[in-house]
Amino acid sequence: MTELRDVLSTLGRGAEEILIESELVDKLKKAEPLRIKAGFDPTAPDIHLGHTVLLNKLRQFQDLGHHILFLIGDFTGMIGDPTGKNVTRKPLSREEVVENAKTYQQQVFKILDPEKTEILFNSSWLDNLGSRGIIGLAAHYTVARMLEREDFRQRYQANQPIAVHEFLYPLIQGYDSVAMRADVEIGGTDQKFNLLVGRELQKSYGQRPQVVMTFPLLEGLDGVQKMSKSLGNYIGIDESPQEIFGKLMSISDTLMWRYYDLLSFLSTTEIQGLKASVQEGANPRDIKIKLAEEVTARFHSAALAQEAHQAFIAQFQKHGLPDNIPLLSLSASSKGLAIANLLKNAGLVASTSEALRQLEQGAVRIDGLRVEDKGLVLPIDSEHLYQVGKRRFARVKVFNE
Amino acid sequence: MTELRDVLSTLGRGAEEILIESELVDKLKKAEPLRIKAGFDPTAPDIHLGHTVLLNKLRQFQDLGHHILFLIGDFTGMIGDPTGKNVTRKPLSREEVVENAKTYQQQVFKILDPEKTEILFNSSWLDNLGSRGIIGLAAHYTVARMLEREDFRQRYQANQPIAVHEFLYPLIQGYDSVAMRADVEIGGTDQKFNLLVGRELQKSYGQRPQVVMTFPLLEGLDGVQKMSKSLGNYIGIDESPQEIFGKLMSISDTLMWRYYDLLSFLSTTEIQGLKASVQEGANPRDIKIKLAEEVTARFHSAALAQEAHQAFIAQFQKHGLPDNIPLLSLSASSKGLAIANLLKNAGLVASTSEALRQLEQGAVRIDGLRVEDKGLVLPIDSEHLYQVGKRRFARVKVFNE
Repeated sequence: MTELRDVLSTLGRGAEEILIESELVDKLKKAEPLRIKAGFDPTAPDIHLGHTVLLNKLRQFQDLGHHILFLIGDFTGMIGDPTGKNVTRKPLSREEVVENAKTYQQQVFKILDPEKTEILFNSSWLDNLGSRGIIGLAAHYTVARMLEREDFRQRYQANQPIAVHEFLYPLIQGYDSVAMRADVEIGGTDQKFNLLVGRELQKSYGQRPQVVMTFPLLEGLDGVQKMSKSLGNYIGIDESPQEIFGKLMSISDTLMWRYYDLLSFLSTTEIQGLKASVQEGANPRDIKIKLAEEVTARFHSAALAQEAHQAFIAQFQKHGLPDNIPLLSLSASSKGLAIANLLKNAGLVASTSEALRQLEQGAVRIDGLRVEDKGLVLPIDSEHLYQVGKRRFARVKVFNE
Repeated sequence: MTELRDVLSTLGRGAEEILIESELVDKLKKAEPLRIKAGFDPTAPDIHLGHTVLLNKLRQFQDLGHHILFLIGDFTGMIGDPTGKNVTRKPLSREEVVENAKTYQQQVFKILDPEKTEILFNSSWLDNLGSRGIIGLAAHYTVARMLEREDFRQRYQANQPIAVHEFLYPLIQGYDSVAMRADVEIGGTDQKFNLLVGRELQKSYGQRPQVVMTFPLLEGLDGVQKMSKSLGNYIGIDESPQEIFGKLMSISDTLMWRYYDLLSFLSTTEIQGLKASVQEGANPRDIKIKLAEEVTARFHSAALAQEAHQAFIAQFQKHGLPDNIPLLSLSASSKGLAIANLLKNAGLVASTSEALRQLEQGAVRIDGLRVEDKGLVLPIDSEHLYQVGKRRFARVKVFNE
């Protein structure tokens, strides 16, 4: 029993909710490998640290001998995920989905053991359902219960459109659990409703319901919105050691503790110790370096993490740059972003007219080089260090959804 | 233009609504055959007078040279109740659908010209839609607009469950119009919402929207609920001349005028003349005989209608029966209906204890024969003339859904 208690404590660390914990205990007691499901949306092919909260949990299950079912929602990706979005999302083409899935596979094996991981695509059973199967599935849930889902309820009350097919998405996702015979499903807190639909459907189809475990969503570099590729506030696990290290160094001292809780493999006691040391006068910057090293090493190596650390220090010493330059992602039309707008949106100037004045005066630098072209347009995906005068800095990436 | 006005007047007679009449005019002006859609449910193979309101309208379109698309909705019939909870809505097998369709065909050609009628089954395109097709279809409509449908709205507000798949049925029915490239769809007033979904979907799919024509629902013999096989208050067009004639004679004097409006081929002026004659003292019974003859002759022949008329008169004279015996259908469990309950439910006695007393006293007759067996159970589908004492009569059919 002591051992089971340890197992539960490991698996439960960081979980927001376990529904229902006693069922998890029963399942673990059987001492047979459990089928652990986690679904991933194929819209964002680059796995970022936000995803790793769940991936690390899957790794823990895997290390305890359980069977990991890594589900790529290629079918549902072609519908669009309404969760947390107040607008209907554009569906992906089959080509995009296939391309994205490949990237996923390459990246997740940095965390998961490929020998013990089954990668599944829900199109393989959902396409076979056919018109009649989808209708039969839709009969298992009522409109009223669907409207209990927080985001649906809010949109309905605010007279924002909900397309009928959005009601099918939770059912389809729930049916995945039936097709996969999942014993446990883990997901973000924003997925709780959909995960519970899986429980319900499994009961309807005569299966033992899965245990649902939800985990908090990791905030992005801005510390406000959840980490997401489309918001541009993410750290991809496939990025270079320098990028991972540098981006982690750009987060606020407050956000750093959140990242420690959700990303570090240090024990809770060790993290408490770090907090205490800061209260006793340690420089948060040094604690942040420790985190940046741990996470960078995880996706590269200890040596490369050290190298990134040294490069980071050297860069700032060489350029006399401050060591906490904000990192921003600014959205733009597909044509890119005009320099004056970029400087204003990045908060480096108060207005576009000030931006134009600073350009005229030669006070604007991009990656250290003076720029005077007022007509300059920064293309999508460009990323540079912008400087206005002596003290104002920002690293800015231009993106387009 | 005079001719077009006549055509419009013919086609519009009896219509509750034409949406949109100016579009119908435009379509008729082209002087090309229009594709006229009407959908029929494959669960009830016996066509009754309720169906003929639409069938007669189709015949009028046909006589004007238009192309009739007689749609048998076998797809949804083959799904039945997807939860399997409702035993009365068991899915139909393909064989049953084919069998029912044959019966339909035999019967509708009593009204429609088989040379100018195309019979279609919606499974032939809906099965091909597949899971993704259904989801794509569902994306064309919002939850809020679906909840505008009167019965959905009422059920939602009354906290009565609406299963999600019920939202798919109007879309599926609407998609039929797309697949059939319908120019006009006719249906009962209860179908108005679904017919309008067809218009919307046609626009979404880049077609000119169909004109929707709705027609009132014919009340059954009880004068209250709509005529329906499952309610047992119907006159099948395949019934014998005697049955059709007799059932029509059993309707109330009020209902008779409704039947004149919706079923008779007499002109509006002629019907007005009949109403005036009753107000001036004519016996409504004679007017009812005129209707019974017209309708019986339509599905048999003038001679057979005359014969039925004579038989009807003779029967009542011989038995000394009143000429307006109510005709009732009583629902029962699959085991049938006990005589005491039948007499009570038919309103022939005030209570089952009175029924038992009347049986003891030999005051109960079935088809003229005295019955004293208190344990008698009348089987499903039995139909007899019941009499209690000298004056209380009812013709009762026992049915089970």
